Amino acid sequence: MTVETDRTRRSFVLEDAVAILSRTPATLDALLRGLPDGWVAAHEGGDTWSPFDVVGHLIHGERTDWMPRARIILAHGDAKVFDTFDRLAQFAASKGRTLADLLDEFATLRRENLRELAALRLTAADLERRGRHPALGTVTLRQLLATWVAHDLDHVMQISRVLARQYSDEVGPWRAYLRIISGTQG
Amino acid sequence: MTVETDRTRRSFVLEDAVAILSRTPATLDALLRGLPDGWVAAHEGGDTWSPFDVVGHLIHGERTDWMPRARIILAHGDAKVFDTFDRLAQFAASKGRTLADLLDEFATLRRENLRELAALRLTAADLERRGRHPALGTVTLRQLLATWVAHDLDHVMQISRVLARQYSDEVGPWRAYLRIISGTQG
Repeated sequence: MTVETDRTRRSFVLEDAVAILSRTPATLDALLRGLPDGWVAAHEGGDTWSPFDVVGHLIHGERTDWMPRARIILAHGDAKVFDTFDRLAQFAASKGRTLADLLDEFATLRRENLRELAALRLTAADLERRGRHPALGTVTLRQLLATWVAHDLDHVMQISRVLARQYSDEVGPWRAYLRIISGTQG
Repeated sequence: MTVETDRTRRSFVLEDAVAILSRTPATLDALLRGLPDGWVAAHEGGDTWSPFDVVGHLIHGERTDWMPRARIILAHGDAKVFDTFDRLAQFAASKGRTLADLLDEFATLRRENLRELAALRLTAADLERRGRHPALGTVTLRQLLATWVAHDLDHVMQISRVLARQYSDEVGPWRAYLRIISGTQG
């Protein structure tokens, strides 16, 4: 295996990013499809999200966030501010639907978005093009695409944590060893 | 979807646990197989683990931790202390192997272990049987099996985090929004 000297950071390379982005639908499918409903509806209390909610959120991102923002950057640069992303849109959009249906839609949208991304044939110069985020200000296309990757993984992490914490009491004394339950990272 | 009143905790039910345990190999396969080597070898600095290391650790758990300890509980109760689990065994055992090979082995061992678990036809009384952990003291079979589930998810979470943090710098100002990178949970 080829190992980079610094294994804690990777420079953004489009093919590497796509390698992760293209795997997320199958990862969530393998983890969630067919799980008993109680797991799928599990959350962490209050207005925290269930795995079902998270998949709806990822769908909304495919529709309104990542590629639409990339298109704005390529067409308008930082002259046009991105539309605000609605972090709660999935609560209405997913209502009455099944998880299987949401997983299918996420996979389809992701495939279409990655096809469009490939068709753009982005150059190194394109990746440095600037856009304007409504709250964060100036960002680059490269940062947007890197964030798409990290955002996927953030939600895979969230789903794993939500599921594991369902057994916070059931694990008994092992709780001390399980960082996913004790809340420490490392 | 049937939703339990309390969505933050689930009581341990063997079929629910197996639903997660049986999905972990395919989840890791979907996430990791074929990824560029740099992702597979990524870690968080110092002696933290890469995705490659984590899969080796899960293999070692299949061989020496979960079902072997279940067998000790069923055969000896708390009269026999569990063998200590070697958290670093994978560094020697995985040496020179490919990730694809490790993923295959993990899937095979998990399938065999779940077959053995099913063959035990555990009763509610069996689940309450006690064993003795070398550090944690008295534990039950039920707690052991719940921990197996949470441990899987802990490592899915870890792999997601390790991968996402590779882009800690590349995400630019979005860092503030990405809990997986900023290190906050919630």
